[in-house]
Amino acid sequence: MDTPDRLIESTRELLWERGYVGMSPKAIQQRAGAGQGSMYHHFSGKPDLAFAAITRTATELRAAAEAQLSGPGTATERIATYLRRERDVLRGCPIGRLTQDPDVMADPALRRPVEETFAWLQDQLKGVLAEGRRRGELDAALDPASTASTIVAVLQGGYVLARAANSTAPFTQVVDGVLGLLAAHAASPGSSSPTQGAHGLCS
Amino acid sequence: MDTPDRLIESTRELLWERGYVGMSPKAIQQRAGAGQGSMYHHFSGKPDLAFAAITRTATELRAAAEAQLSGPGTATERIATYLRRERDVLRGCPIGRLTQDPDVMADPALRRPVEETFAWLQDQLKGVLAEGRRRGELDAALDPASTASTIVAVLQGGYVLARAANSTAPFTQVVDGVLGLLAAHAASPGSSSPTQGAHGLCS
Repeated sequence: MDTPDRLIESTRELLWERGYVGMSPKAIQQRAGAGQGSMYHHFSGKPDLAFAAITRTATELRAAAEAQLSGPGTATERIATYLRRERDVLRGCPIGRLTQDPDVMADPALRRPVEETFAWLQDQLKGVLAEGRRRGELDAALDPASTASTIVAVLQGGYVLARAANSTAPFTQVVDGVLGLLAAHAASPGSSSPTQGAHGLCS
Repeated sequence: MDTPDRLIESTRELLWERGYVGMSPKAIQQRAGAGQGSMYHHFSGKPDLAFAAITRTATELRAAAEAQLSGPGTATERIATYLRRERDVLRGCPIGRLTQDPDVMADPALRRPVEETFAWLQDQLKGVLAEGRRRGELDAALDPASTASTIVAVLQGGYVLARAANSTAPFTQVVDGVLGLLAAHAASPGSSSPTQGAHGLCS
């Protein structure tokens, strides 16, 4: 990694471990093994570094979600894959927890990538749910937009409850709970006109 | 307010505004108008003050939830009253956001009241849902325990999404969403044996 990369990675770690207010430029430099001059050559200061760190985290989160949501399976299966993917639950969501960082939320430039990531995620889930309805996998009573928001909220709330309990069990429980609610919307066979064989190349 | 009270209130405010790491004993003293000697007379230090502040917030939260959940109406109506009560949504949940405070979660004594508050809240909601099922207001397919956890998760996630968007709209949307999912479990009239007139003294 070159120096800007090391500075961004150190900022990501410290932002996670200490929060914005607890993260000093000096600590970032020390962890990155970079001097003060070098840091200010690449970044204008702590807000600039935090922006680069948050943007990188958001980009990674989007790439992972996109891969899981665009995989094979029905809408519900793809959402289950996404919700049940390996996560470091007890560390919390690296984007979600920024909403509890007063300094990050107070700076519109730092809040924007957080807001955009959630808007993007809700939009992706809404698309998957709408596709599931079109394919006849989900019934017409399911509203893709509000259900997508509820899924994102359950995920974020699951992290909160898991951290409070210092256990992954509450996270697993609420993911199962929301998938159970989704399952109740599974269209009964023959209740609509799914595109037969849409998932199998050879069928 | 006497000095210990003022110190606890100042700690509550600073914990909310700055987080544990950003809250200095000096700032607590200044805001409370108390001297260092007085502070250490009443509290052994910052962790002790934080414990008193968190415990007081948890007690208030329980009292408010208890009042709304034990009010009149069906199970769903009481839960709606609780979820839709006036909240300072953009400030976040004073208990939930502590789960994102690394120092609070790292201290078992400070984490305990957070964990207990969520466990208590889930238990209360489970009780209301179970009562709704017994009364025939909710159908038998609804699982009180996992639904209670999901409601708490949606509430906590709603705060996260609202703060990310700097708008109360996402909170309102996810509350409507989860109440919509609950409504789908409303028992159809005559599908069970509700205690007729259970809500009316004169019926």
